[in-house]
Formats: sequence, C-alpha cells, structure tokens
Amino acid sequence: MALLGLGLIGCSLGLALRRRGIRVVGWNRTARAARLAARRGAVSALAASPAEAVRGAGLVVLGVPPAAMPRVLAALRPALAARTVVTDVGSVKSPVLRMAHRNLPVPARFVGGHPMAGSERSGPAAARADLFRERTVVLTPEAATDGRALRAVARLWRLAGARVVRMPAARHDRLAAVVSHHPHLAAFALAAALGEPGVAGLVAGSFLDATRVAASPAGLWADILQSNLPALRAAVRAQRRREDLLLRALGGSPGGAERALAAAGRRRRGLLPGGTGPVKP
Amino acid sequence: MALLGLGLIGCSLGLALRRRGIRVVGWNRTARAARLAARRGAVSALAASPAEAVRGAGLVVLGVPPAAMPRVLAALRPALAARTVVTDVGSVKSPVLRMAHRNLPVPARFVGGHPMAGSERSGPAAARADLFRERTVVLTPEAATDGRALRAVARLWRLAGARVVRMPAARHDRLAAVVSHHPHLAAFALAAALGEPGVAGLVAGSFLDATRVAASPAGLWADILQSNLPALRAAVRAQRRREDLLLRALGGSPGGAERALAAAGRRRRGLLPGGTGPVKP
Repeated sequence: MALLGLGLIGCSLGLALRRRGIRVVGWNRTARAARLAARRGAVSALAASPAEAVRGAGLVVLGVPPAAMPRVLAALRPALAARTVVTDVGSVKSPVLRMAHRNLPVPARFVGGHPMAGSERSGPAAARADLFRERTVVLTPEAATDGRALRAVARLWRLAGARVVRMPAARHDRLAAVVSHHPHLAAFALAAALGEPGVAGLVAGSFLDATRVAASPAGLWADILQSNLPALRAAVRAQRRREDLLLRALGGSPGGAERALAAAGRRRRGLLPGGTGPVKP
Repeated sequence: MALLGLGLIGCSLGLALRRRGIRVVGWNRTARAARLAARRGAVSALAASPAEAVRGAGLVVLGVPPAAMPRVLAALRPALAARTVVTDVGSVKSPVLRMAHRNLPVPARFVGGHPMAGSERSGPAAARADLFRERTVVLTPEAATDGRALRAVARLWRLAGARVVRMPAARHDRLAAVVSHHPHLAAFALAAALGEPGVAGLVAGSFLDATRVAASPAGLWADILQSNLPALRAAVRAQRRREDLLLRALGGSPGGAERALAAAGRRRRGLLPGGTGPVKP
C-alpha cells in the first residue's frame, strides 16, 4: 500500500494498518513530517516522490490536502499500474471525483473516501492508531466504480477499526456540510468574538466546546470550506431556521420553550456514548 | 452560611466551602436531592424550609433555578436578619436585581453573582468541589450596594477557588449572551438537525462538541434564555454577521479566506489552557 500525505489522517491510518501487518510505503511533501511519521512507525519505508511510492502498490491512499491533489495526481500518474486501486480521505467528495476522472488512467478504480474522524491538532505528532476505531468512513462509489476496488477500500478501513457506509458524493457533501463544515465555520466565527472587549475574560465550558475546532489548521479549512461552499451556505441557512424556530418558541410560553429545547436535547442524548450515532447502512 | 438549592452549582459550592471549614446549612425543594447533597458532604445540616435555613445565617446563597426565585425569596423573607448578606448564582442578573429590590428588606445587602462554570449534567450527583477552581465569578454590585456585603461574597467565591470580577448587571447579561446563552441556543438548534435523515450516522468531533450542552436541563435553559431574550437575539445577530464575513472571505481568494480563519484561530489558541482567558479586572 502507498500512503501519500503523512498528516494527522494519513499517519493515523498508517499506524493502524501496520499493526495489522500491512506494508505501507509513505511519501510526504515535507521531509521533516515524513521522518517523524517513519519514527512513529506509520510507514514501512519512505519514498522520495509520489511516483516512487505508488510503483508496484496494489492500493494508493491519497492523504494530501485538497489543494495539493491535482499536483500529486499528476506526479503519480506515470507510475500507476492500471490495476491499482486509488482512494482519498478528503472532506469534500464531488471535486475529488471530477479530479480523478480527469487525471487517472482508470477512473473506475478510484473510490472517494472520507473518515468522519479528526482533531483540531494536525501532523504526524497528533496521529493515533485508534483514530478511526468505531468511527464512520463514508465511501462514495459511482455507477461505473469497479466492485473489487470498492471492496478493497472498504476492507482497508475495516482493518483500521472503522465502520463503512456508502452514499453518492453529492449526498455526502450535503451531509458533511451539516455535521462538520458548518460547525467549523460557526466555531471560527464564534472565536472571532474573542476580539470584543470583555468576552475572553468570561468564557466557560459552552464557549470553549463551541470553538475548539477553531484551532484547526486555517489553510486546510479554508480549502475544505471553499470547495463545498454551496452546501455550506445551505447548512448555515438551515441552522438559522432551526435557531429562529427556537427563538420563536422562547418568545412564547415557558412550557412551549422547554418542550422545544427538550426535543433537541433528547436527540443529542440519543447519540451513542462512543460519539457517533446509529449508523444507517 | 445558608445554601438554598442543592443542584450542580449549589452542591459544588457547598463541597468547596466545607473543605475550607465553613458551616453550611442547606435546603432543597426536593428531599431526595437534599439527602444526596448531605451524603456527599455538601452541607453540615439540612433545613426543612428556606426560612429555617436562613435563620441566624450571616450569608445566604440562592442556588435555585431562576423560576423558583420569587417563591423562595417570599418564603425566606420573614426569617431574614437585616444584616444578612444575600447572593445568587443565576445566569441572568438584571431580573434578579429587580426581584431583590422588590422582595428583600435590605436590597443593599444583595449582591448578584454568576459563576462562569457548569456542565451539561445537573443535580448533586454531578457536583464537584473543584467546579469553580480558576473559573471566573461575576458579581454585579449596584451604586447602592453595601461594600461589606460585596467583599463578603467575593471572599466566599475566592475560598471556593474562583477569580472574582465585577461589572454592571446589564453588561454581564450582554456578555453572558455572547459567551454562554447564544452557544447554548446554537447547540440546541444544531442538535435538532439530528432529526434529519442521515445526519446521526455521520456526526464526529466538531458536531459532538458543538452540541454537548444541548444535553443540559431543558427547563432551566428555557428559563435562562427567556429571561435574557433581547441580549440573546443581539448575540445571535452578531454571530450571523461574523459568519457572513467569513462566508464572504470564503467566496474570495484562498489567501484571504485562510487569513480570516487564521485570525479567529489565533484568538482561540490565545485562551489559557485552563479554559478561561485573560481576566480583565
């Protein structure tokens, strides 16, 4: 297996798979992070280029930031065997599928993937072998996607401890805007309120939780949010509608307001303690 | 000292103060929670009524939910000595000050208070002696407030490990809407999105963090949000303006979008690891 991009996600996947006995050849743009990933045991060997990494690999995982994807695809293309399965870990799937169609010799062997796991920390230092344990990974096969390629990628994530669900890329991107991209935008926006006089001195639990992910890498998140902007805008509008409904209830009777908040609270408490909710296959 | 209301906040304060050797007479509306608070060591003795609890007390802390405040003030008033200092722990201060003026024999001995600490869990079982350690407590004295009463309440919170800041009630309520009431409303609204198909199966860290406090007691929060509705609405509008600024930046160049997110991220990272930010006295 070739692992291109040894950040938080790539390196965590390498750590998990090597424990299952899989040989992982890694590459990273910056040599320093590559060496740290190797020291942490996330790769069996380091390659000097994307092309060198993918030569002879049965499966290639692209763990590079979305902005780096075209460059890396162009670099690995000449060395890619026709039978090699390629997958990625990006947060937005439709643009990646378009990129794969343009840049890969056999687009049917590309399977878009997105592990619903992460951290506001980044890089190999933050990687953990159990990052994907009992987390959901979304795969976004298309009608033409090769069945064996899809099964190979699903097996890979299950080896890393994850549950795999499949859905069309457009549906993934819409849901990812709701469960992840909008919460990140809201966290960055709320963190900006720390610039107002008096706010920083009073923050407590609810503010700290609501802004934790504002410490995530800004460049990566600008990239993610920009590549899913229409779905992000729709998710923002939906959240405002839900807030307005609650504000209307709060303007009414105490009983009605309590019922509206309690209904939302029950849904939150209904999530499994492990973090993710009941998975719909 | 008399402690009326032995929920999460009252019981945690009792635990902290008893460790400092203070005698605490407690009362709670429901006998079951009162007994649990006593078993956990949050009170030296239990009283059968608010009046019995405050008789002979030098300081009375009102830890009851805002909706119960008028009833409890009416019940304790006949037994309250003129020299007794009274304080509360409610999340909204202007309505409490009005209530104190109407219901207490010496309003100058009432000091509004709000510890910026809590949890989505509630009741004596969730109480912790260190809940207020290095957290900020806001006191909202008025021009006519007795200086000794103010110092007594400040001393009490410092004994429990907290930092004390003073500000007018209106300013507190405006800031509390930004740092706590709006984040709670947003959490309840986002938790309501779990009712939409496919969402619960995909939630991960950012969504879980952003909705944690939606598991807070709905009745208490309906009460808090309803009693600070104008400030809450203003905080919601301010957050939407900040989001719109970020969305505009995301619609522009990658560099501009990254700079906008990075500026917010720096503010979040600038908060002290302990949780609260640099305190402005």
